[in-house]
Amino acid sequence: MSNVVYNVLVMKYKQRALKKHKDLKGKISINVKDDLNDPVNLSLYYTPGVGAVSKYISDNPDSASDYTWLGNNVAIISDGSSVLGLGDIGPTAALPVMEGKAMLFKHFADIDAIPVVIDSHSADEIVATVKSIAPSFGGINLEDIAAPICFEVEERLKNELRIPVMHDDQHGTAVVVLAGLINACKVSGKDINDCLIVVNGVGAAGVAIMRLLRRFAPGLTIIAVDSHGIIHKNRNDLNPTKQRLIDHSIILANESGSLGKALKGADIFIGVSRGNILSEKDVKRMNKNPIIFAMANPEPEILPELAKKAGAGVVATGRSDFPNQVNNALAFPGIFRGALDNKVKRITTNHKIEAAKVIAELVENPTPENIIPSIYDKRLVPEIAKIIV
Amino acid sequence: MSNVVYNVLVMKYKQRALKKHKDLKGKISINVKDDLNDPVNLSLYYTPGVGAVSKYISDNPDSASDYTWLGNNVAIISDGSSVLGLGDIGPTAALPVMEGKAMLFKHFADIDAIPVVIDSHSADEIVATVKSIAPSFGGINLEDIAAPICFEVEERLKNELRIPVMHDDQHGTAVVVLAGLINACKVSGKDINDCLIVVNGVGAAGVAIMRLLRRFAPGLTIIAVDSHGIIHKNRNDLNPTKQRLIDHSIILANESGSLGKALKGADIFIGVSRGNILSEKDVKRMNKNPIIFAMANPEPEILPELAKKAGAGVVATGRSDFPNQVNNALAFPGIFRGALDNKVKRITTNHKIEAAKVIAELVENPTPENIIPSIYDKRLVPEIAKIIV
Repeated sequence: MSNVVYNVLVMKYKQRALKKHKDLKGKISINVKDDLNDPVNLSLYYTPGVGAVSKYISDNPDSASDYTWLGNNVAIISDGSSVLGLGDIGPTAALPVMEGKAMLFKHFADIDAIPVVIDSHSADEIVATVKSIAPSFGGINLEDIAAPICFEVEERLKNELRIPVMHDDQHGTAVVVLAGLINACKVSGKDINDCLIVVNGVGAAGVAIMRLLRRFAPGLTIIAVDSHGIIHKNRNDLNPTKQRLIDHSIILANESGSLGKALKGADIFIGVSRGNILSEKDVKRMNKNPIIFAMANPEPEILPELAKKAGAGVVATGRSDFPNQVNNALAFPGIFRGALDNKVKRITTNHKIEAAKVIAELVENPTPENIIPSIYDKRLVPEIAKIIV
Repeated sequence: MSNVVYNVLVMKYKQRALKKHKDLKGKISINVKDDLNDPVNLSLYYTPGVGAVSKYISDNPDSASDYTWLGNNVAIISDGSSVLGLGDIGPTAALPVMEGKAMLFKHFADIDAIPVVIDSHSADEIVATVKSIAPSFGGINLEDIAAPICFEVEERLKNELRIPVMHDDQHGTAVVVLAGLINACKVSGKDINDCLIVVNGVGAAGVAIMRLLRRFAPGLTIIAVDSHGIIHKNRNDLNPTKQRLIDHSIILANESGSLGKALKGADIFIGVSRGNILSEKDVKRMNKNPIIFAMANPEPEILPELAKKAGAGVVATGRSDFPNQVNNALAFPGIFRGALDNKVKRITTNHKIEAAKVIAELVENPTPENIIPSIYDKRLVPEIAKIIV
């Protein structure tokens, strides 16, 4: 269903998007920072002068980020296995999305991001490749890699590299969801530590959201639901990632049943799976004045007006044409800007929680229609980039 | 000896080069080709509009070079194992050189080149890494990878990828040497097919020069000399690359002896090893009016004035402060420009021979002091880029 709607939306933009892309022949290019018509510059930037710089870095490896673009660049790594609503389209077809992401990095955070698409869907091969090319980059942004491979790839790279690594589909989303929930709870007069939350969708974003919420609000009760219903300890179809949610006490896993059953008395619904799966009846089954984050894209789990009609207090979606857009672009530019500027070697959970708080605080007077700042808010990147944890 | 002189030269530029590099914090950056302040552009270049482009490429893989920067980008791949006069300084310290190379690509050929340094000196790992990331690039320029690994890496990548792959230290140099020799022979009234040529240095450049010369001039007699003297069939210390020079009848390998012995009656000397190893006596031992390409950098095998005094007809070096500079930048920008524009899948030996002829022809009236065009000659790149073989 979601794919059908996505394809309709894609069709709407199709001719204009194809024309723009073909006219530009790609959306990014390399810029040279100084003039090479001057032969002296050539001798300083290339051989023999550059030899002094290479020698200096060889003797002082930490200086590399001051003398090369390492201090300002990030690789956008994808295997093209989970691209937008299109699924596994492979590395070459994923490239326009990664170039678009590079545009966002440059526009919002002045970071030089380089798309690197990988011709393999194996965690071992992706990890080996990224480790091999890691000296070329100041940070690694993993993008559109399908669950559960994305978890293993990110975890191993975080442990084995000394530069910041972040899978944006997981943590960018999780940070913005947390930011939105902080303000949604404020608006609704709820204490998040007393809430029952239902997360529908246990892919990259769902898992990261639950892990971050557990750390932020130890009192919160979380129920996770996938396409087979509530995740509970007696199910024998759980992959290791889902099993770990139980083993690490991230979720409550005593009950079995449907999404509808899980929603009974819930305060918050977080949807990160498929469009049009939440009915007005489902919303009515929830606690009074519930908070609904219906982030399936482009078709939300429930349309905001229907959710409101059924009693929802605050509704957020992934779309820019409704209020309260949950958009990764609120988080990743500032997080990477700060990681590069402060030479952060590892983006920790505390770092993400602080980023969420900063984003939430930028909305001075949150209302049900305004819990999340605009991606064009100029304070976002510098404020998030200040975080040192 | 060469390293000492190199270090003196590096010292001369050291403070200025370090300052320039630190001020710029790297010499290249990412440029965004259109404005993202317009939210409509955001919807066209990123989600949802970009979905149409990804879908289109997924259905028409060959169109990727028209809709992304694949049609204009090249990876500069190095493991940092053989960098300038510095040797094996590793991937991070090699980065300033690769950024400099990226500047040359952009300045001379408007190609977007991306430095990718690799944290491994194993041929298997370098090949695996490059194959893995190959969908990200329209071409692969291998750079500063030590012999003999460079031969295996290039050969395997050429066979296993469907994009142009060239190790510039080999072929860029070989093409320009051939271009220079064409004009040097013209100036000296020599027929290259009747010549005896001595190549001193059997690393990346030396091997590529010999292979290219053998194809260009089947009648040419080539003697190869390494640090142990003339390469001949009874030596038991030859690596597979050197052995293949014998097996493939690239070189004459019947005689043993020193460089001095090899030079007796030679018409051409090609030096690609160490500085200051060719004496006036050596030159006098050669045939009348010999051609000397003394390309060790920065200290040539013999200084041009000494070679001339000893009777040399034409002298070329690798330096910009003497006449006849053999500079890779004469060849690689045009070769890659043409490969990208004409969607060449493999840069063949004939392609390189044609490039050498084009470079040679740009010198309208060759003289002993002018056998090679300037790298600033605006005709170079477009003329070489026209080559289709």
